[in-house]
Amino acid sequence: MREPPPHIIESLKRFLDEDVRSGDLTTKAMGELAAPAVATIFSRSNTILAGIEEVVALAEIAGVKHEVLAFEGNWIEPGTAVMRLNGTARSLLAIERVCLNIIQRMSGIASKTYNLVQIAKKVNASVIVAATRKTTPGFRYFEKRAVQIGGGDPHRYALDDMVLIKNNHIALVGTVGQAVRMAKESVSYTKKVSCEVRSLAEALEAVSAGADIILLDNLGPKDIEEIHAALVDSGTRDRVLLEASGGIDEQTIKEYASSGVDVISCGALTHSYDSSNFNMSISLR
Amino acid sequence: MREPPPHIIESLKRFLDEDVRSGDLTTKAMGELAAPAVATIFSRSNTILAGIEEVVALAEIAGVKHEVLAFEGNWIEPGTAVMRLNGTARSLLAIERVCLNIIQRMSGIASKTYNLVQIAKKVNASVIVAATRKTTPGFRYFEKRAVQIGGGDPHRYALDDMVLIKNNHIALVGTVGQAVRMAKESVSYTKKVSCEVRSLAEALEAVSAGADIILLDNLGPKDIEEIHAALVDSGTRDRVLLEASGGIDEQTIKEYASSGVDVISCGALTHSYDSSNFNMSISLR
Amino acid sequence: MREPPPHIIESLKRFLDEDVRSGDLTTKAMGELAAPAVATIFSRSNTILAGIEEVVALAEIAGVKHEVLAFEGNWIEPGTAVMRLNGTARSLLAIERVCLNIIQRMSGIASKTYNLVQIAKKVNASVIVAATRKTTPGFRYFEKRAVQIGGGDPHRYALDDMVLIKNNHIALVGTVGQAVRMAKESVSYTKKVSCEVRSLAEALEAVSAGADIILLDNLGPKDIEEIHAALVDSGTRDRVLLEASGGIDEQTIKEYASSGVDVISCGALTHSYDSSNFNMSISLR
Amino acid sequence: MREPPPHIIESLKRFLDEDVRSGDLTTKAMGELAAPAVATIFSRSNTILAGIEEVVALAEIAGVKHEVLAFEGNWIEPGTAVMRLNGTARSLLAIERVCLNIIQRMSGIASKTYNLVQIAKKVNASVIVAATRKTTPGFRYFEKRAVQIGGGDPHRYALDDMVLIKNNHIALVGTVGQAVRMAKESVSYTKKVSCEVRSLAEALEAVSAGADIILLDNLGPKDIEEIHAALVDSGTRDRVLLEASGGIDEQTIKEYASSGVDVISCGALTHSYDSSNFNMSISLR
Amino acid sequence: MREPPPHIIESLKRFLDEDVRSGDLTTKAMGELAAPAVATIFSRSNTILAGIEEVVALAEIAGVKHEVLAFEGNWIEPGTAVMRLNGTARSLLAIERVCLNIIQRMSGIASKTYNLVQIAKKVNASVIVAATRKTTPGFRYFEKRAVQIGGGDPHRYALDDMVLIKNNHIALVGTVGQAVRMAKESVSYTKKVSCEVRSLAEALEAVSAGADIILLDNLGPKDIEEIHAALVDSGTRDRVLLEASGGIDEQTIKEYASSGVDVISCGALTHSYDSSNFNMSISLR
Amino acid sequence: MREPPPHIIESLKRFLDEDVRSGDLTTKAMGELAAPAVATIFSRSNTILAGIEEVVALAEIAGVKHEVLAFEGNWIEPGTAVMRLNGTARSLLAIERVCLNIIQRMSGIASKTYNLVQIAKKVNASVIVAATRKTTPGFRYFEKRAVQIGGGDPHRYALDDMVLIKNNHIALVGTVGQAVRMAKESVSYTKKVSCEVRSLAEALEAVSAGADIILLDNLGPKDIEEIHAALVDSGTRDRVLLEASGGIDEQTIKEYASSGVDVISCGALTHSYDSSNFNMSISLR
Repeated sequence: MREPPPHIIESLKRFLDEDVRSGDLTTKAMGELAAPAVATIFSRSNTILAGIEEVVALAEIAGVKHEVLAFEGNWIEPGTAVMRLNGTARSLLAIERVCLNIIQRMSGIASKTYNLVQIAKKVNASVIVAATRKTTPGFRYFEKRAVQIGGGDPHRYALDDMVLIKNNHIALVGTVGQAVRMAKESVSYTKKVSCEVRSLAEALEAVSAGADIILLDNLGPKDIEEIHAALVDSGTRDRVLLEASGGIDEQTIKEYASSGVDVISCGALTHSYDSSNFNMSISLR
Repeated sequence: MREPPPHIIESLKRFLDEDVRSGDLTTKAMGELAAPAVATIFSRSNTILAGIEEVVALAEIAGVKHEVLAFEGNWIEPGTAVMRLNGTARSLLAIERVCLNIIQRMSGIASKTYNLVQIAKKVNASVIVAATRKTTPGFRYFEKRAVQIGGGDPHRYALDDMVLIKNNHIALVGTVGQAVRMAKESVSYTKKVSCEVRSLAEALEAVSAGADIILLDNLGPKDIEEIHAALVDSGTRDRVLLEASGGIDEQTIKEYASSGVDVISCGALTHSYDSSNFNMSISLR
Repeated sequence: MREPPPHIIESLKRFLDEDVRSGDLTTKAMGELAAPAVATIFSRSNTILAGIEEVVALAEIAGVKHEVLAFEGNWIEPGTAVMRLNGTARSLLAIERVCLNIIQRMSGIASKTYNLVQIAKKVNASVIVAATRKTTPGFRYFEKRAVQIGGGDPHRYALDDMVLIKNNHIALVGTVGQAVRMAKESVSYTKKVSCEVRSLAEALEAVSAGADIILLDNLGPKDIEEIHAALVDSGTRDRVLLEASGGIDEQTIKEYASSGVDVISCGALTHSYDSSNFNMSISLR
Repeated sequence: MREPPPHIIESLKRFLDEDVRSGDLTTKAMGELAAPAVATIFSRSNTILAGIEEVVALAEIAGVKHEVLAFEGNWIEPGTAVMRLNGTARSLLAIERVCLNIIQRMSGIASKTYNLVQIAKKVNASVIVAATRKTTPGFRYFEKRAVQIGGGDPHRYALDDMVLIKNNHIALVGTVGQAVRMAKESVSYTKKVSCEVRSLAEALEAVSAGADIILLDNLGPKDIEEIHAALVDSGTRDRVLLEASGGIDEQTIKEYASSGVDVISCGALTHSYDSSNFNMSISLR
Repeated sequence: MREPPPHIIESLKRFLDEDVRSGDLTTKAMGELAAPAVATIFSRSNTILAGIEEVVALAEIAGVKHEVLAFEGNWIEPGTAVMRLNGTARSLLAIERVCLNIIQRMSGIASKTYNLVQIAKKVNASVIVAATRKTTPGFRYFEKRAVQIGGGDPHRYALDDMVLIKNNHIALVGTVGQAVRMAKESVSYTKKVSCEVRSLAEALEAVSAGADIILLDNLGPKDIEEIHAALVDSGTRDRVLLEASGGIDEQTIKEYASSGVDVISCGALTHSYDSSNFNMSISLR
Repeated sequence: MREPPPHIIESLKRFLDEDVRSGDLTTKAMGELAAPAVATIFSRSNTILAGIEEVVALAEIAGVKHEVLAFEGNWIEPGTAVMRLNGTARSLLAIERVCLNIIQRMSGIASKTYNLVQIAKKVNASVIVAATRKTTPGFRYFEKRAVQIGGGDPHRYALDDMVLIKNNHIALVGTVGQAVRMAKESVSYTKKVSCEVRSLAEALEAVSAGADIILLDNLGPKDIEEIHAALVDSGTRDRVLLEASGGIDEQTIKEYASSGVDVISCGALTHSYDSSNFNMSISLR
């Protein structure tokens, strides 16, 4: 069993199908281009590299030989050759766009994550920077993996990964304490329970009801610092993880990282990033 | 037959499956939340609105009633209610994230497109701003549609939409003229043939071989202006469309728009944009 | 969004397809049987009832009206009518076998689980009885849900639900402590880490490395009791959950339940159970 | 074309996907475990062996080399090595559970079938023991194949395999004779027609209408013996196969086997059996 | 459960997807055409009507109302209105081509079958005219159903419907007798066994080995007559069905029908027929 | 990336699944037939050969070795060996029918196309003979490709390939001119616009509105000649392609080809053709 997992292999096949559909008109028009060719993928940005595993899988789906020249998670400079592919010219042209579309996005996300993690770790070496479920539909696996390559935490892949009680839920069932207790009673012991709180009182309520993680959404660093301190005072700080979220970016993450939290989650990692630039040059062998 | 088309309905179902997987643990932990509830989707950005058709389709898949309050293609302000949804609380929670993930991305792309189109049209009212195939794998339909909502041209959905001869192809088969002639001879008469050129000589070669569109990739506005002028002089300008591409952005598009081209294509429309911000508030009825 | 989740609806459609394939020859031979008919599903066993949600979903897929007469999780006696279905005779015949095959298995599992839970809770009211991944391929969702209806814990649905370090893993990476530390460092903070141990020494090693759950596989109740006691003595007992497993059945569960463990997991819940007996009577309206 | 057939290969991939989902967290946490390893599947029960063909197919899907050490249909003792697999440690871990879940169930069913067949054949060497459609949804192919490995007859895979007129159908169309005649007139000549009867009169009616098989459901061995004798007397016994069914088990099958029937069908073969026990040991090469 | 069966509904959706793909450009270009419209499907040929059930299913998939005006299996004249559909103009345009493509082919096949059946039945009222597996890949269900509507027998849908021993098989295993005996011993009692023979000797061998059907492929009517007569003489004729095949057409079927056979199978029913002509007129309501 | 494209590989797998379903009963009955064998596909018709690429793909799916002995697009005589396949006997039997069903249909269509093209080109060497969307649902790719092998133009694969304004559309939006202008304004510049017209006036209207192609449906050759001449006179003839359609066959195509049109489209190419005859002989190696 190779990575990626089986359903992701199916996704990659669908991605090729989306791009190729009934066939590459241009390749056919050029006489099928069945001659053996070699392609090199070059970076054209300063970037963390991510998406190599996916390009390898695409190459195998297409019957194209591959050689990895640079490694996921490394910073690379413009002009770096990252992979070499050998196959018929038409095979290489058929996967070119999907390979680049994946590697560009994943490297863009990994780079953004890396930058945020670096800023945060400078002030708090043990802080975790995490993604959210604000991912492109159908592309979540790839975006979460890119976050991990950049040094971030993927957070939940799906709604069955953890209980995460938000304000919407609390409003529907009553209080923070009640919500956490309902969760602890009904959910599998293999799962963690996280709960959003808006105040110190709610934080204490959540802790005493048994929450594993407390989510502080849209609170300022000062407020979070106070809650952290109060939990320390109450002797319950080490029973929960504290997570901050809400529009945190390159400018504000430093303050949050030094507020006492364990985790900072950040939707922009996957919803607002610039793709890194890569290209593929193809020539006959 | 409603829009979206059948295979896009399947994509939307897969998007829900990606997020819900074996079930929403939190909803179950809160006691299933089967009570009737109402949800409103609000904009939190200044943005062109896009993705309403998709939210409608998701609501229908989930058995949720829907009312559209604002229209695709309009600029809306923060705080604008764009849709109202009626269903059980758990139904609304189950589609919340996928709805927002789509509407945020599509609105972000539509807004970026709209801005570029506005800038370009100020100097050349008839110029077309087009997307590329640099889209998120599996999400191309949605990104192309967002470009159209923003006033752009979707360009090719797949490799079978048009012949587009690039430098890679020309290198493989010989000359621009040869490549275009091969294409004109073998491709269906229902299809257009576009050809990338690097010089005036190649442009003239492409035109005389019968190309419908000439792609000027990574040329500066000045070079393009010269090619345009030379084609006018040769009396062949009205036989082709001229398309510029290559890293064109909000800063440079004005110059390109006034260089004589008919079309400006721009990968950043879909590979480097910020999501617009939307949220969904849910309350019991 | 109704339960079951989207991919389970697809499973249910596949189940119907498996049974109906190119069409029901007998129904066609009887003249299509399009007359309106009513069907009642009766229990023929003493059993906990499970699978009603699935029959409801199958009825909706088939366009059959449904009325629930008895509730999941209740003990019912032979002769109890549990659902009434209204549709054409052929619709009812087309879903009959799949409905019964699901309800019989799920009720069988729920009953077996209920019995084990009752025995265990008599000696330890807070003990959890959990399933394993020893489920029928393709039918795991249904078997796990049946365990929950019977009062059990579903445990992991898939390999991404929790880290569970087994002896095979420990042998591959070195020691218990090393394995747990590797897991704690690399896995998302949203996930728990469980580790199998074979001795008190390993148990202490796992606890101090930060394991959330300690799995005591194929140890006798006496050995478990000793480990439990030693953890109490060391002041670390409340930092982990203790789970026993390995061939535990109706005869031995009592001893394990009183050994100090928090969880007893039991593969036989899903791999060796008798189906409960149900039938469907159909008559013209 | 290898066995299993194409759609079963798809089922096996879905089974892996069900278990692996977004990836094996534990394997990743242990550092990917890409080292070459060897796994051996051992029996831990006295059992008929079944499911080897499926494990071979899973190994090929996962790119794992395989060597078969024991054969389907043979009785094996605890401790018997049945297959050896060579691949990366992570590949072996990724297919371990699905392999065991299949081989345990199929061997359990084959063993139960074998036992029933042995008992029945002692008193009637030519009697056929057959399965029913009371199979686990989505897993029918595997369960039917296990029945065959155990020496049983698979009976119908789906509703299009044969006409089987049950009491429900007869009630809807009138009489046994009418139902059989309708079937003989409308169904393809490539198909057999079976009909359930409740009395000698109905049996004679079915035979004279041309039924190929007569199903005697929930009749006692004595009643069946009488019907058999009466058919012999009427000179029509050799024009049909007689099949008994209805709660027949290890205790009662002997009597049924000597009642004159050709076939005994038994739902418990697939709905109420104990899995055989197998395990997989994995070590680095 | 409506006909068609579940997997055929999936096929119909795929057919729409094949035609609509990323959307109907023309409909969009005409301003979406969301106005309510009515469509009528007219025959433009003299034809047996078939495919109505499929058009009904397509209409339901597309949310279009439908009224059936003429019935499957009837001869209709040019100009006959066969169905009326009500929906938005774009819905009707979206399903138009797929509806017509199905109804034209199925009616063409039904008509060809009807003609052959009429010719054959004039000389032998009980003879069966059957299709083969020479169907269009992916479209077999529809072609087989059309044969049935035309009065023919569908024969095998797939390789698991019946044992059919052909010359290729006999060559591989030895003799006709051996092949039939192997089949009778190993195949389920629910299945028939057919065997191809090339001579009277082989026919007698097949009968005495227990074949249910004897296939006389590429033999002339005279040879068949002799085999039929010899079987009558030997007192075994009523133990088997005799089936003739091999390039039988409108010219030669009469002779075959009077040669004593029970069944004539004919590949041309599905591989070489003319589509009937139908069109759809659409107007605003 | 080999041809066929990814989704066509999926179609081919579905075709095998349609034929094999739960397994080949006859092969199993003959003892699995795992011995190595060789198969040769022979033509039994005079025909253009098409479908070899598909047989190659099927052989690869089934793990069968293949050697191509004759080439697509060539005329071959009865008795010509076109492919040799090496695999187990059962592999060859498992793909036999699907291979032949594809090759027979594609060769039949290619031959019919070739004949029509030859007739048309005799009187007009540059005329294009094109297919339509009147294809067998689910089999369009193969039928279009066969048309191309026979020298024809595939025309639209789907509704998103080109704008084609038909009378139905014109009736819904007003006039030809209005319809064409709407299309030119809204559709991507990468797409052509075709418009059906019924008169010279409409033809001129379409040209001046910017149509790329004018479709003359159900007009006689004389009428077409007049429109052609009038367009020449008006100096606009070289701005559009003229396409004739409507029941054109082997008898009438000559007249149409000499009427001045550029394209003749013909539904019968794919809806009413005779399959060419091929067979496969299999023997043990």
